[in-house]
Amino acid sequence: MIRLALLLLLLAGGAQAQPASFQVTDFATGLERPWGAAFLPDGRLLVTERPGRLRLVGREGQVSPPLAGVPEVEARGQGGLLDIALAPDFADTRELYLCHSAVVQGGALTRLVRARLAPDGTALEGATPILDATPAQEQGRNHFGCRIAFGRDGALFLSTGDRYVTKMRAQRLDDLAGKVLRLARNGAPLPDNPFASRTDARAEIFSYGHRNAQGLAFNPWTGSLWAAEFGARGGDEINLLRPGRNYGWPVVTHGVDYDGSRIGEGVSRPDMEDPIHVWVPSVSPSGIAFYTGAAFPAWRGSLFVAALNPPGLVRLTTEGDRVTGEERLPGIRTRIRQTVQGPDGLLYLLTDESRGRILRLAPG
Amino acid sequence: MIRLALLLLLLAGGAQAQPASFQVTDFATGLERPWGAAFLPDGRLLVTERPGRLRLVGREGQVSPPLAGVPEVEARGQGGLLDIALAPDFADTRELYLCHSAVVQGGALTRLVRARLAPDGTALEGATPILDATPAQEQGRNHFGCRIAFGRDGALFLSTGDRYVTKMRAQRLDDLAGKVLRLARNGAPLPDNPFASRTDARAEIFSYGHRNAQGLAFNPWTGSLWAAEFGARGGDEINLLRPGRNYGWPVVTHGVDYDGSRIGEGVSRPDMEDPIHVWVPSVSPSGIAFYTGAAFPAWRGSLFVAALNPPGLVRLTTEGDRVTGEERLPGIRTRIRQTVQGPDGLLYLLTDESRGRILRLAPG
Repeated sequence: MIRLALLLLLLAGGAQAQPASFQVTDFATGLERPWGAAFLPDGRLLVTERPGRLRLVGREGQVSPPLAGVPEVEARGQGGLLDIALAPDFADTRELYLCHSAVVQGGALTRLVRARLAPDGTALEGATPILDATPAQEQGRNHFGCRIAFGRDGALFLSTGDRYVTKMRAQRLDDLAGKVLRLARNGAPLPDNPFASRTDARAEIFSYGHRNAQGLAFNPWTGSLWAAEFGARGGDEINLLRPGRNYGWPVVTHGVDYDGSRIGEGVSRPDMEDPIHVWVPSVSPSGIAFYTGAAFPAWRGSLFVAALNPPGLVRLTTEGDRVTGEERLPGIRTRIRQTVQGPDGLLYLLTDESRGRILRLAPG
Repeated sequence: MIRLALLLLLLAGGAQAQPASFQVTDFATGLERPWGAAFLPDGRLLVTERPGRLRLVGREGQVSPPLAGVPEVEARGQGGLLDIALAPDFADTRELYLCHSAVVQGGALTRLVRARLAPDGTALEGATPILDATPAQEQGRNHFGCRIAFGRDGALFLSTGDRYVTKMRAQRLDDLAGKVLRLARNGAPLPDNPFASRTDARAEIFSYGHRNAQGLAFNPWTGSLWAAEFGARGGDEINLLRPGRNYGWPVVTHGVDYDGSRIGEGVSRPDMEDPIHVWVPSVSPSGIAFYTGAAFPAWRGSLFVAALNPPGLVRLTTEGDRVTGEERLPGIRTRIRQTVQGPDGLLYLLTDESRGRILRLAPG
């Protein structure tokens, strides 16, 4: 028995495909549909609530009153206050980015906002829209994206959604719906973007043909940008994003429409990128995070995927830019919107509930 | 450290999603492309070699000379001597079943043979063809299936392949290619088969619309019949087989053709069955086995899938008739054709190599 235990112990430390024993606790409660979160350098956590509030969660899980200065959002359907990310130089600038759905003339769209966190942490200052994923769309309040991620070069990546009603928006290069954008800190397109020199395309676009990507993370070992996007019925995807590439929606997909009817023309096309991982049936993948911490040696190299339906947390094992295995973590059966690694190496999960929580996964 | 080790130990015994520590050894060597295997009640193992030989492997791995009385096979392309299964009453009757590719007037086909193992184990006696998966096909020597499995009711299930050249054979009910058949012990259709009363369909058919199923196993916990089949490029499937159902090939599939062109009309149709698990990209799944043994408590409930490309062994975790997770076993990087659980609860893997082996997985 002791010998077996020691073997298991050795294995647990040695290979990412191996197990970890964990316990789940409620780290914070009383949050309404938390959607995005970012740890401050001091270990506190900024959390968005989809109805339009931003709160600061202390190191012991105490939840602050809503911060002042948060922009007004369009909190209908799948819209609201969505992701948050700190600028890479936040420690010096206190700058952060939010994305949310907004109503403008002509309808709703995904909006990116730059702001600063007030020194006392009770408010945002100078919140300014820096990009609207135009054109606005009158009909529907679904598929806004949006996740924000910063590249090593400081570029800001933002995913948008196809806005559901007109799937082909994702294929149009003069339209910011259904894209991943690559932006300067002021929201302007970067000059070396793939379509920067074309007059018939929006210069903000990094990649296109996305349905509704709510997961965006750089693989810390390869430097590649990974995205998770929802398919319709079936056909959820993990994609490896490369500049200027077409990820196929709605021309190629592994999903079918909710009424069972066919979408597009097949599952693959030579001029479009295949996903590196497909879920059929769906798991409804929202936020993703690569695990790099020391608390769970066995999980290093894994990609955690927040799953809405069936509700739970999925762990993908990876080798370089390949997915090699998949595990649904036992005992977690709540809709998870986002997964964030803490500075303590623990995992923090935002539950998609009207009385939402932040779950904490710790060893043992 | 001790505490963590104990936790791991507890977990290892408690949940199928948890790990197992194993070692791999060469149990037997000197086999040419072993394809199918069946343990005798005395613990010895009958193994087919695709070029047309059958051998008996002793409890210490010693490999016998080829058995006499084995039918002549058509060993070209993917054909040859393929699966073997013991009759449920083998202990009394010494009866067993083989399937192989054969050439008849008009071309090649998959053939099912009944035989008895001679008392001294050196020969088959009375080998008799009891079913030909007609019509024969002149062109090509690919996609013969075939796996044999016995149901709790004693029915013999046999998978066939679509023979590659004319994909639509899988959809024709007057054709035995691309099917799973349900047969009496003499190869005749069972009277309660789903198409037994139709004049336009072959009464042997249990399910149809299969491309090339080489994995067939009853889930011992639910009693359901699971099948693994190769897709083209992408679109490998695990299917839950139900009588009379259409599994879609080549009308719906998640794969594309090897030149990247589209196959069929999409991935799903209301009148066809969706797979319960899809691999994109492919793993090339051949034989499958549910693990029920005591040697690896952590693996109980898992479905092992022999993978040809990328080569290795895949473990699927299951809950009832659902797939909940997937792991590629570390360190196994050989093309595996079949996986069999031994009476000792260990796993035996047949390698698809010209100098083929049987690998044994044991704890520790």
